[in-house]
Amino acid sequence: MSGAPPAERDPGRESGSGRVRLRLLPDGRPPREVSVPPGVSVFEAASWNGVAVDSTCGGHGTCRKCKVRIVHSAEGTDDADGTGPVPVSRLDPRAFTPEQLREGWRLACLARAVSDLEVEIPALSTRPKAATVGVGRQVILRPAVQKRYVELTEPTLSDQTPDLERLLAALDDLEPVPDLHAVRAAGRVMRASDFKVTAVVVDDALIDVEPGDTTGSRYGVAFDLGTTTVVATLLDLATGTPVAVRSMLNLQQPSGADVISRISATMLDPSALDRLRDAARETLDQLAREVCKEGEVSPENVYEVALAGNATMVHLALGIDPEPLGVAPFIMATRALPALLASDLGLRFHPRARAVVLPALGAYVGGDIVAGVLAAGMDRDRRLRLFVDVGTNCEIVLGDADRLLATAAPAGPAFEGAQIRCGMRASAGAIETVRLAPSVELGVIGDVEPVGLCGSGLVDAVAELLRVGLLDRSGRFVPEQEAVRLAPELAGRLTAVGGERVFVLAGDVYLSQRDVRELQFAKAAISTGWRLLLEEYGAGEHEVQQVLLAGSFGSYLSPASAVRIGLVPELALPRIVSAGNVAGEGAKLALLSVQERAGALALLEEIRYVELSDRPDFNDRFVDLLSFPAGR
Amino acid sequence: MSGAPPAERDPGRESGSGRVRLRLLPDGRPPREVSVPPGVSVFEAASWNGVAVDSTCGGHGTCRKCKVRIVHSAEGTDDADGTGPVPVSRLDPRAFTPEQLREGWRLACLARAVSDLEVEIPALSTRPKAATVGVGRQVILRPAVQKRYVELTEPTLSDQTPDLERLLAALDDLEPVPDLHAVRAAGRVMRASDFKVTAVVVDDALIDVEPGDTTGSRYGVAFDLGTTTVVATLLDLATGTPVAVRSMLNLQQPSGADVISRISATMLDPSALDRLRDAARETLDQLAREVCKEGEVSPENVYEVALAGNATMVHLALGIDPEPLGVAPFIMATRALPALLASDLGLRFHPRARAVVLPALGAYVGGDIVAGVLAAGMDRDRRLRLFVDVGTNCEIVLGDADRLLATAAPAGPAFEGAQIRCGMRASAGAIETVRLAPSVELGVIGDVEPVGLCGSGLVDAVAELLRVGLLDRSGRFVPEQEAVRLAPELAGRLTAVGGERVFVLAGDVYLSQRDVRELQFAKAAISTGWRLLLEEYGAGEHEVQQVLLAGSFGSYLSPASAVRIGLVPELALPRIVSAGNVAGEGAKLALLSVQERAGALALLEEIRYVELSDRPDFNDRFVDLLSFPAGR
Repeated sequence: MSGAPPAERDPGRESGSGRVRLRLLPDGRPPREVSVPPGVSVFEAASWNGVAVDSTCGGHGTCRKCKVRIVHSAEGTDDADGTGPVPVSRLDPRAFTPEQLREGWRLACLARAVSDLEVEIPALSTRPKAATVGVGRQVILRPAVQKRYVELTEPTLSDQTPDLERLLAALDDLEPVPDLHAVRAAGRVMRASDFKVTAVVVDDALIDVEPGDTTGSRYGVAFDLGTTTVVATLLDLATGTPVAVRSMLNLQQPSGADVISRISATMLDPSALDRLRDAARETLDQLAREVCKEGEVSPENVYEVALAGNATMVHLALGIDPEPLGVAPFIMATRALPALLASDLGLRFHPRARAVVLPALGAYVGGDIVAGVLAAGMDRDRRLRLFVDVGTNCEIVLGDADRLLATAAPAGPAFEGAQIRCGMRASAGAIETVRLAPSVELGVIGDVEPVGLCGSGLVDAVAELLRVGLLDRSGRFVPEQEAVRLAPELAGRLTAVGGERVFVLAGDVYLSQRDVRELQFAKAAISTGWRLLLEEYGAGEHEVQQVLLAGSFGSYLSPASAVRIGLVPELALPRIVSAGNVAGEGAKLALLSVQERAGALALLEEIRYVELSDRPDFNDRFVDLLSFPAGR
Repeated sequence: MSGAPPAERDPGRESGSGRVRLRLLPDGRPPREVSVPPGVSVFEAASWNGVAVDSTCGGHGTCRKCKVRIVHSAEGTDDADGTGPVPVSRLDPRAFTPEQLREGWRLACLARAVSDLEVEIPALSTRPKAATVGVGRQVILRPAVQKRYVELTEPTLSDQTPDLERLLAALDDLEPVPDLHAVRAAGRVMRASDFKVTAVVVDDALIDVEPGDTTGSRYGVAFDLGTTTVVATLLDLATGTPVAVRSMLNLQQPSGADVISRISATMLDPSALDRLRDAARETLDQLAREVCKEGEVSPENVYEVALAGNATMVHLALGIDPEPLGVAPFIMATRALPALLASDLGLRFHPRARAVVLPALGAYVGGDIVAGVLAAGMDRDRRLRLFVDVGTNCEIVLGDADRLLATAAPAGPAFEGAQIRCGMRASAGAIETVRLAPSVELGVIGDVEPVGLCGSGLVDAVAELLRVGLLDRSGRFVPEQEAVRLAPELAGRLTAVGGERVFVLAGDVYLSQRDVRELQFAKAAISTGWRLLLEEYGAGEHEVQQVLLAGSFGSYLSPASAVRIGLVPELALPRIVSAGNVAGEGAKLALLSVQERAGALALLEEIRYVELSDRPDFNDRFVDLLSFPAGR
């Protein structure tokens, strides 16, 4: 021998950015072609795409049920070491005979797809449960929270197996690592319940031992931690069904309406970080108690929570200094947080309940957006889709199963009703829809007298004024004479307040010339964003097959008005859909399926972030897009 | 395809109890043959046996430095899948070219030895540090606590890598998972110290980020948590040297002198478990503060502790109900505890300091004994050795590198000075040595007037009385006339107290006939134990090459007297050695080397426990051994 080890091989060589294609051949069902990032396990690749593979351990390599046969490497991959396209894993020899290994049998959860493959998938021995979550997604239930009821033999002098080892040996398809809490509980609970107990497992951890059969009782809570509104959904993890949903305003509100003002608060006052952290926790805790009460579920039976929020909300809730997020060059602490306890978020569920925080792509494309993209299934849809979460910071994602691009556009607070003369939040008295047909028809939240204009009403008002011609494409109110000619019934509402031209909607509520300008700035920022993403992708506006409007604002926005003002591409209206609270749906997905949770992490590698602010052509584009589109 | 997966292969087939042999060929050094349990990594097999393999990550598969070439499978093992005797692991393709893989190159930490192998080990690129610990063991320093000083580039708009990912990317040989504590610290500390920081890693976890270069400051504390005495050693983990050592009585003492009385206390009083737990913690914490003060080390710089104790002490310290340990069938909660925090033991070091508890073989062969066997290197020594920890419960281990047997013998409290008329603990005033040469020569602790007799004095007194003939082999004091004939100078000391014959040692201190009986019961229990182990092993008493007397009592016991009363095999006296505080040494080993820590776990598989109490011949043996051996 030479005495010196061989030189290091470049590890980067293995991690290409291209995807690999898998042809899945499920027994008795039609073949299915999918493409996934290289390195993903065959098990995950199949599960993400709705092709079920037998498993009870959830892909941890312990149950040895996910047997598949890799029959063909489409590329004729490097087979230098004679192991076939997928090497034999450390556990494969326990599951298969040498002959079966030679025939290509592998455990799907340990078989990593690094080249194109054909995979035979045996028929399922049990029918997996599935749930419909997110934007019409059918998801195979594989929660990290699992329970196993076991009836153990009692120890004797000739069988002195320790309590915990006795229990673990009975969990034949799981190999969890016990928490100290479970170590303390095991012996006491086993003896108190005639050695008939239920093991509570979350992911890789045995967190508790419960007396008797409690397998029917396992719950999780999904949180959408918004800057304005926080939503909690209590989920029955055994069935995948929501048991209770509650929402409330984020108690951080008094420290500022948007993320920047809350970050500023922590920079001005050293005690503000603790105060904001506590306010977030109080919000989460209050919702937690409400959903448990409504669902008649003991908080002790909630074993895991998932939380989706933007980067600032997540930093604050965990007591991480958010200052680097708020000042250039806008740096976050981490994209993916480690495994946490629910108590790290101040939550009082099972004392060892886990918390999973949806990962973030960057300081301004947070875990709420990653959750949304996951819930919308953008990484596995062949259609070219545009995801827009309209807000002070507007996040935009464009792409399909092959490629995803994201960016953030600083839209400003117009859509929140701020900086607008008669602007207000979407609460009682806010005008939320406007029709000029030809007289003024207003939809008012709470069916009361209108007292102001919220974001969707603002968009509607401008869109309708454009349609009837009282606003020109440049965003100016037309001269009075022209107004009388174009819309005699409405012209009288064009007047002036404090020397500024306004259009009176009702009583004291009006839309001013400057309000229109604010909206133009906001929509120009957003449309510059998606137009530049389209250019990066190499597609035209009309190639977009669906626009998903995310977030609560997106739910109320009129697609027709959004198209009219140029906020979204000019598509047939049925292609512009409100995706609802997709961040919350993504958090639910993470609770219901460990594969989906892994899929969220994979998105960090799959989505490329496109920075707009340093593009030399950004300002020119922005100015060009201040005008409204030509009417149809 | 058939549509059905192949039948399950019996997983038990893989885990034989026989060992595999490795022929290690270190470059420039003589070959070395070792035998290890199957499944152990080549890296561990070499490290445990003092053959160093390059590594900076400590065997976690991340540094890719532990390159070895597996040149030969001595057995011609099943090579059906063409991968050679050791399959290619998931990380091997990142470290080697396909040609190198074919030549047999593997990462030693991921290469598991399941058959006999020959392994070429390249010369070291750096000289590893080593320390002498335990019973003269040379140990390669590989503490779980590692520090890395890095000078990071500052983030910019064109490099928005999150803080934690920037740091992790700079730790090129480690891939730790961050604790939330480290996530919180990273950004703040990086910005406060010009992006020059030290990462603190314990095992797989990044626990903190410290400003500047603190690599010189990493400490651990090893605890020997004895029923009577607790010892703490503060170790400098960078050099392997002890910085300070302190001991004190276990503050649980008021609840009972031995483990059974403490277990009983918890059964009688529901609040006793908490009280005993708190007493253990107070003891550990007090010692912790003392060693830090003495060593002038900040408790914040102690990142890990290791603790060796018997099963009852460990259960109590962690607040685990010990009742099942104390009543038949004597069941422990678990042999190996999961990774803990030092704070789980009530210790106030670094807030995320880890705690490793030495694993136990059973309810009565605890982590203290596993630690002792590790420190004595019994699993890698070719000599047949007998390890005896004399105490109320006497633990006995017999064997060599090929086979190890253990048992526990209920010796009763004689050696602790209890049940002995003038018995006392080994403290000031206790007679600890006795010579009848021919007059009475006493060694008294503290050089004061003797007030009682401790364990070693008891053994000496009986041994000397046997030697001069005042006690016969059956343990009876000889008749007065015979005493006068055999030892005229001593016969006057043979008198009676309360109708019982006694031998007066000094003033009020005497040895009674019943005391001799107590000692006979104790020594018979112990010698029955090791004689039955010898039978199981298939060796005779004189084949034992070394007797190790463990524990503090073992340190004071006279080898000559131990042989004389038949407590240990009749060997040449230099072969009977006091091993000192081997439990504490084992705890130190666990702190200094992750390989040794893994070795402690491996002992659970390597040592076979032999239960004495259910053997039909136990009582006959015991009665036979009540007599003392014939004098030499």
